[in-house]
Amino acid sequence: MAGFHPQAGRMGLTIRPLQAPDREAVAGMLVDCGAFSGEEVRVALEMVDSGDYTVFVVEQDGAVCGYSCIGRTPLTLTTWHLYWICIHPRAQRRGAGMALQQYVEEFIRSQKGERLVLETSGRADYERTRRFYERAGYQQAGRIPGFYKAGDDCVFYFKLL
Amino acid sequence: MAGFHPQAGRMGLTIRPLQAPDREAVAGMLVDCGAFSGEEVRVALEMVDSGDYTVFVVEQDGAVCGYSCIGRTPLTLTTWHLYWICIHPRAQRRGAGMALQQYVEEFIRSQKGERLVLETSGRADYERTRRFYERAGYQQAGRIPGFYKAGDDCVFYFKLL
Repeated sequence: MAGFHPQAGRMGLTIRPLQAPDREAVAGMLVDCGAFSGEEVRVALEMVDSGDYTVFVVEQDGAVCGYSCIGRTPLTLTTWHLYWICIHPRAQRRGAGMALQQYVEEFIRSQKGERLVLETSGRADYERTRRFYERAGYQQAGRIPGFYKAGDDCVFYFKLL
Repeated sequence: MAGFHPQAGRMGLTIRPLQAPDREAVAGMLVDCGAFSGEEVRVALEMVDSGDYTVFVVEQDGAVCGYSCIGRTPLTLTTWHLYWICIHPRAQRRGAGMALQQYVEEFIRSQKGERLVLETSGRADYERTRRFYERAGYQQAGRIPGFYKAGDDCVFYFKLL
């Protein structure tokens, strides 16, 4: 991460790599946001704890209100995966998610990454999430019906960076 | 795998779970088929060795000539992933791949799996592979340009079982 530094920017937001004391805030937002099953929360935290991924947090007014977990996609040259992004409900609709996403994209560019791919749910209650990615410039690449469970499709997105 | 047994069927083919002495044949076919980079061969063998996946081999006239590596897709209820399939070039075009694929699908059904998803390359030299999946009833679900490397798209397929 040489040459890539925490960003203190607009709207009192600071974005920086996750540190050990942030774990409690990350666990809290994964539960409080209501979007994830218990199994999903467990896997998301395992990935944070593993040290195998790059994890950034966003602070608003000094409190961690969101995080993002990314990594190089195995067996690809310049593709990265967005595994998780979560913004605490109390901080949503105030630009923290988009600022975090733009920071992550800039970080990936700094690592010579050329595209970011992600999967999300096709469920009605994920419509705001899908609109978020579309506003951020992601293209829908495909859909697999019933992927997560009956009535819960997987929708693939990617963005060329 | 209770109630699911090796299949000795048409064309002198036997399909059964991988055993430790099969590893050399699997490594040989991954190299000899010419479809995989050194890094891909290394990852494929790591997955065989890990014990975390379900691996079947197909024997023709008593010699292992192909293998398939599958597993439940994390965070889904009834979706499985086909991670690798490889048939030794000397055994290709003789039905071993399709017999192995049908066996794998039947195994997944026996585990209450309802769909199998896979990713393959969009490269011209993978056209025969894509036609294989299409003949086997797989639908193209999407494509991400340049996913593996420049000019090497990822193509997603799925089949409802």
